Amino acid sequence: MKKIWQKDKSLTDQLVSIFTVGKDLDFDDRLAKYDVLGSMAHCKMLAEVGLISNEESLELQSVLNEILSSIENNTFEIDTEAEDIHSQIESVLIEKLGDTGKKIHTARSRNDQVLLDIKLYLLDEIRAIGELTDSLFQQLIRLADQHKKVLLPGYTHFQIAMPSSFGLWFGAYAEALVDDLELLLSVKNIINKNPLGSAAGYGSSFPIDRESTTYHLNFKTLNYNSVYAQMTRGKSEKLLASSMAVLAGTLGKFSYDICLYLSQNFDFISFPKEFTTGSSIMPHKKNPDIFELVRARCNRIQSLPNELILLTNNLPSGYHRDMQLTKEILFPAIDSLKECLEILIYTLPNIEVKNRILEDEKYKYLFSVEKINEEVKSGNSFRDAYVKVGNDIENNDFQYDTKDLNHSHQGSIGNLCLDEIAHQFHKISSKLLA
Amino acid sequence: MKKIWQKDKSLTDQLVSIFTVGKDLDFDDRLAKYDVLGSMAHCKMLAEVGLISNEESLELQSVLNEILSSIENNTFEIDTEAEDIHSQIESVLIEKLGDTGKKIHTARSRNDQVLLDIKLYLLDEIRAIGELTDSLFQQLIRLADQHKKVLLPGYTHFQIAMPSSFGLWFGAYAEALVDDLELLLSVKNIINKNPLGSAAGYGSSFPIDRESTTYHLNFKTLNYNSVYAQMTRGKSEKLLASSMAVLAGTLGKFSYDICLYLSQNFDFISFPKEFTTGSSIMPHKKNPDIFELVRARCNRIQSLPNELILLTNNLPSGYHRDMQLTKEILFPAIDSLKECLEILIYTLPNIEVKNRILEDEKYKYLFSVEKINEEVKSGNSFRDAYVKVGNDIENNDFQYDTKDLNHSHQGSIGNLCLDEIAHQFHKISSKLLA
Amino acid sequence: MKKIWQKDKSLTDQLVSIFTVGKDLDFDDRLAKYDVLGSMAHCKMLAEVGLISNEESLELQSVLNEILSSIENNTFEIDTEAEDIHSQIESVLIEKLGDTGKKIHTARSRNDQVLLDIKLYLLDEIRAIGELTDSLFQQLIRLADQHKKVLLPGYTHFQIAMPSSFGLWFGAYAEALVDDLELLLSVKNIINKNPLGSAAGYGSSFPIDRESTTYHLNFKTLNYNSVYAQMTRGKSEKLLASSMAVLAGTLGKFSYDICLYLSQNFDFISFPKEFTTGSSIMPHKKNPDIFELVRARCNRIQSLPNELILLTNNLPSGYHRDMQLTKEILFPAIDSLKECLEILIYTLPNIEVKNRILEDEKYKYLFSVEKINEEVKSGNSFRDAYVKVGNDIENNDFQYDTKDLNHSHQGSIGNLCLDEIAHQFHKISSKLLA
Amino acid sequence: MKKIWQKDKSLTDQLVSIFTVGKDLDFDDRLAKYDVLGSMAHCKMLAEVGLISNEESLELQSVLNEILSSIENNTFEIDTEAEDIHSQIESVLIEKLGDTGKKIHTARSRNDQVLLDIKLYLLDEIRAIGELTDSLFQQLIRLADQHKKVLLPGYTHFQIAMPSSFGLWFGAYAEALVDDLELLLSVKNIINKNPLGSAAGYGSSFPIDRESTTYHLNFKTLNYNSVYAQMTRGKSEKLLASSMAVLAGTLGKFSYDICLYLSQNFDFISFPKEFTTGSSIMPHKKNPDIFELVRARCNRIQSLPNELILLTNNLPSGYHRDMQLTKEILFPAIDSLKECLEILIYTLPNIEVKNRILEDEKYKYLFSVEKINEEVKSGNSFRDAYVKVGNDIENNDFQYDTKDLNHSHQGSIGNLCLDEIAHQFHKISSKLLA
Repeated sequence: MKKIWQKDKSLTDQLVSIFTVGKDLDFDDRLAKYDVLGSMAHCKMLAEVGLISNEESLELQSVLNEILSSIENNTFEIDTEAEDIHSQIESVLIEKLGDTGKKIHTARSRNDQVLLDIKLYLLDEIRAIGELTDSLFQQLIRLADQHKKVLLPGYTHFQIAMPSSFGLWFGAYAEALVDDLELLLSVKNIINKNPLGSAAGYGSSFPIDRESTTYHLNFKTLNYNSVYAQMTRGKSEKLLASSMAVLAGTLGKFSYDICLYLSQNFDFISFPKEFTTGSSIMPHKKNPDIFELVRARCNRIQSLPNELILLTNNLPSGYHRDMQLTKEILFPAIDSLKECLEILIYTLPNIEVKNRILEDEKYKYLFSVEKINEEVKSGNSFRDAYVKVGNDIENNDFQYDTKDLNHSHQGSIGNLCLDEIAHQFHKISSKLLA
Repeated sequence: MKKIWQKDKSLTDQLVSIFTVGKDLDFDDRLAKYDVLGSMAHCKMLAEVGLISNEESLELQSVLNEILSSIENNTFEIDTEAEDIHSQIESVLIEKLGDTGKKIHTARSRNDQVLLDIKLYLLDEIRAIGELTDSLFQQLIRLADQHKKVLLPGYTHFQIAMPSSFGLWFGAYAEALVDDLELLLSVKNIINKNPLGSAAGYGSSFPIDRESTTYHLNFKTLNYNSVYAQMTRGKSEKLLASSMAVLAGTLGKFSYDICLYLSQNFDFISFPKEFTTGSSIMPHKKNPDIFELVRARCNRIQSLPNELILLTNNLPSGYHRDMQLTKEILFPAIDSLKECLEILIYTLPNIEVKNRILEDEKYKYLFSVEKINEEVKSGNSFRDAYVKVGNDIENNDFQYDTKDLNHSHQGSIGNLCLDEIAHQFHKISSKLLA
Repeated sequence: MKKIWQKDKSLTDQLVSIFTVGKDLDFDDRLAKYDVLGSMAHCKMLAEVGLISNEESLELQSVLNEILSSIENNTFEIDTEAEDIHSQIESVLIEKLGDTGKKIHTARSRNDQVLLDIKLYLLDEIRAIGELTDSLFQQLIRLADQHKKVLLPGYTHFQIAMPSSFGLWFGAYAEALVDDLELLLSVKNIINKNPLGSAAGYGSSFPIDRESTTYHLNFKTLNYNSVYAQMTRGKSEKLLASSMAVLAGTLGKFSYDICLYLSQNFDFISFPKEFTTGSSIMPHKKNPDIFELVRARCNRIQSLPNELILLTNNLPSGYHRDMQLTKEILFPAIDSLKECLEILIYTLPNIEVKNRILEDEKYKYLFSVEKINEEVKSGNSFRDAYVKVGNDIENNDFQYDTKDLNHSHQGSIGNLCLDEIAHQFHKISSKLLA
Repeated sequence: MKKIWQKDKSLTDQLVSIFTVGKDLDFDDRLAKYDVLGSMAHCKMLAEVGLISNEESLELQSVLNEILSSIENNTFEIDTEAEDIHSQIESVLIEKLGDTGKKIHTARSRNDQVLLDIKLYLLDEIRAIGELTDSLFQQLIRLADQHKKVLLPGYTHFQIAMPSSFGLWFGAYAEALVDDLELLLSVKNIINKNPLGSAAGYGSSFPIDRESTTYHLNFKTLNYNSVYAQMTRGKSEKLLASSMAVLAGTLGKFSYDICLYLSQNFDFISFPKEFTTGSSIMPHKKNPDIFELVRARCNRIQSLPNELILLTNNLPSGYHRDMQLTKEILFPAIDSLKECLEILIYTLPNIEVKNRILEDEKYKYLFSVEKINEEVKSGNSFRDAYVKVGNDIENNDFQYDTKDLNHSHQGSIGNLCLDEIAHQFHKISSKLLA
């Protein structure tokens, strides 16, 4: 590196290449498969409109199929000389098919090719996130049902407020996932539009048929305008990041609750020892590292939309190389979110809930509203009842004997509406996973 | 303020009140109408389930109707003693109806009441944003059609790249609005769920009927789980902010293009003098302040989701007073976004496009790809053609005479697909504005 | 507003003016005083270099002094016709002094004038924040000293860990303020450089003397380069926001601790009833709204740097109107931070700490490390001791009788080093307040 | 991964370990050296206060020296069984020294150990960033001086405004680095405080001497309070990120200018072909990828402070595992910033500036203020002159013949004050690099 200051053309080439490629190759592997699928659709279309012959198309597809197999078997290798995965695939075609291989790039630019690959990849990852969210949802519904009778203090302002239950608590996070998935579904629909054919962002003078590639690639529709198609680079990533951030917000809040409830000062739940971490210095510690790290990772994920906005903002229309960095920002975050979902799905069945929490003296005031409601039901006005119970509390005279609760409305302790919530979830997840 | 350090109970009450109320009253006006509508639905339901009588319900609704009229006439006044708009409305009911007035609050808490008001307000604002977006969309489609034959240089990396057109440019931003509105629609659907009846976040033991208020308030469905219903406070605001940010991203990019195109170094468009701003020192200046401020405001709006995440993050479940600040963050931003849309709608019809931009010598290289394509069409291979044209450029021999372009594919200069784009837009906007 | 779509020149002027001025006038009041001070220095310099005569300079300064008095007495009025405070002040000069008044603007532009005003204003606000931070620091040191012997559980991972004390807790936040003030001081030093004379960002051909205005305005030095001087617009605001965010991070964390410690599940501290807020529905509630709102406001403040980065980022050098919005972003946040400091300073002397917290059975494991250390001191190896105490805990045999702690090192329970911390603080605050 | 749903204790151990360790090991290498240095200082101190003997101390230091050598030679290996680098180093000590090795951990916790390692690492990286910034500064000053007579249009609002020069432009970014380094220096001073001895955040009952380790490790002072010392975890990273973001803001703006100036529509500068990138489709393209990627990376870096705030915010005092993620957020960003500085330093000497830019007809209005100033100097009032020149421009009569400029004030085209700026820079850099 001492030589960096010297001027030397080949050194320059090397340094410029190192700097501009950056970490990009680390993420190319993920795109290889989609690059092949895109090329297959592209060459079918080229034959349909007569830019190549049917024979050429079949030859190209045959080699592309071989490449696809080698990618799926992890035997596809990138030549160290190749600039990127896209060049490598084209090189193999040329090597095996000669002039026919050279025709694959007709009426296509690196810009729409990469954009297509990214969109196809994101669509698959959306499905994967959807499947994991579905699993987590099932678990939460099951836990809500299983523990629906176990009471818990409800808090507002960190102060004990009114009775809650584990059914209500688990069920709340299940229902949160309904909304989170609804947002993810709309993002999927927005991404699910074919950009291929927009070339460098200004279309081409070849008479290509973009409806055809839309059909072959199974897109819902296409990004019509070529300039706009290019604008979806960066925007697609930002949209997915926004919906991931909302889901991460739910997981992070749930994890925060768990960390708090595991504290000796709450002691509402526990996990088997192997799900906690000890301390090298304090032999009594059982730390909830898993949940702290889910929270922390989810906080990182919540910073994604802003990071992508900063990257893509205040740039006029037209491609800028800045876009390259969306991959290294978004792709690892997708992995991280999936890992958070997986570890929660694995860990949650092992949660143990404490049964007699409300017996502790300090929780008796949770029932002050129940006491007031009783007075109201027996004819007293709310305001008088409120004053009376308030005075009892002030004078340490407050007592509330029976802890049978009689909540019956939709979404209350006694009527969790788990079926209705599950119905809403499945309506969305069936579209997302279709 | 010198006395702030002294301890004095009534001073304390005052200071605590000033600090905790903050700017909240400034935003209460917007919620007044929705508070009344919510109370009307609530009292209908209370009568249906027998918690109040039909006569009481009618009396309450009658006074609520009066209050609604006075709010709409701007004659409703908040007593300086009243804590907030919600208390004020309740006070009027009690003042006019005595004991019957005191019954409006049965089975309701301030938490679900405010949450309801905010959701109803946001739903109306979403509609308003949708209507303005619709107007802007029409303008962009009209301008794209009007100027579809006027060519423009297309850039990548700020370098001249390939021919573009005003049709393509205006059309791109029209199509961007399709996706932006699709996201906004999904956010509307997520917000459009009734939280009323969740009380302080843990439901109530009164046998209320939440389906009834859902029906009376015209919500699509309800947030079932009471704990989750409370979680939608902050989350609803965050979701709307996220979709506003995406729309703002589009408007900001468009404004950036305009500022650039107005520069003497591009000189692609102009506006009548009254839409620009002079300089007190430089008599030749016509500054594009409107568009700089649209861009700047849109950048502020793009910071909203992050601001709301910071506010609401890492708080365990249950209401926290922190939520109060979502109003002062989000509400002015809604105004600002609508003002940006309005000023663009007002200004855009006055845009003038320059007709003979591409005649400038420096733009001739835009046609290098056209030259290559011609060679390819006449039988040469792409790679040979590329090298040949590259050499011509290197040797200053590049010429390209005819500037007739023959782009025919979907979304290209010659085939803007404005009808298809408009069709997609209207499918979404008709749902949003329904 | 229906007429907004019609084209009408005077309507256009009005709408453009409303949109471009925005909320700017709301913040002009704060700058008025500094505008006058800047003009006074400017006219002294103009006379020194011979661009105006000494008599003219004295006349101008005399009227400027009158304006300054009227601003300080709140009797200075802005004509509704005036564009802004800067024009208004100039108008008064022209009205009272005729041609002499017209000379105040020689060799100055609105750009460097506003930039100067903002810098002078920010420097005063930095001092105000510094003074309030100083008061809070004194309180924290006093409370740390007062309660230095009262023990508290120390937590890691929300799990009880090792003994802490109120001395350690209050003292920690005092020391945090040392670092926060050190950052603020460096920001002050960076802002404390004179931009006057950079005109519109490219200097002027008048032979002005920028060292002279630097001296008259009491700046430490000057922003030499005229282009860079203009770049400090936006950058100064961003720098101050960054240091405010760090201070807000400290106050927010302290408030979070307080909210938690006030929960019945911790119950480590309390405040007199008048510092808490009740619930309209739950008569037992004493909510810590003050501290929740300090936390919430401080979270907003922590979003400031990002908001300013989004506003000012990806703009090439040279002034852009976008900069106008820094005022409406930063100025209210300065107020808010000062209010947070004030309410903490007012409230904190009333905090009550609980004395016998550690007597609760669940805290006994706090002393597991003490037990290990005892074993180590009596010759056992750390690892053996760790295993032994771990086994005792596992078998419910752990006992630790005496709760006398013997921590002696710097910064430990028994040796808080409050004097050393105060010494560090005063070294910085004396520079900041100089 | 199919088996993830099965319960199996050893599988659980494995999955929990994979999830909790995450990418942490990737960053441990950087900390190894500092861990050894910290251990050396710790064992010297243990001997000084009598917790170990002098012989033991010498033995430990001898092995630590060996480890340090192997780390510097890249021959130090981490056992796959070892939890992390810290454990690995301790294991080697125990393996080589038996019981003596077991004593290194006396009165220390993993928490203060890692915190120390991070601080020492950050201090070295601050120095490295400072050195690179110094090199870039020298280049900018040299370029400013070299091209001080070459004029450039100055812009405001993207509109041509007044004459500028390459001297002013390069000099502006040089002076920006003065302020950026001043902020970095204050962050260095804040980080430069010893946390060792704070143990798990609550100190220890061993009679350690924290002044001694402060001295041995060459810290300026210490974080006294043990609770606060732990709070500097996360805060130190956030502070460094904030100052890196400010420096990145400068580099990003400079890169934006370069990308713009390389556009054919400006054409103010050029670079040799090997510093630009071609297009696979457009043979005329010379894309400024290097500068787009510097801008993009610097935008990522500007998102860092917010990302760290999101991670560390709304957590009460005391360590949380969330802090682990600061490493994977900050460390790669430090590399990235240094790479940006390096590529600029390497590339910038090759910049070519165009000499006769202002001869283009469109730039003549740059001189409108010069024309006015001439009129003013010849006795006309500013307002009359402004109107006269404005009318000339309106009527296409504006002419301005001589382009000799006569700017003489500090920081103007004719008086760049490069020596003064360099003096300010060196005052700061000499402290930073001391």
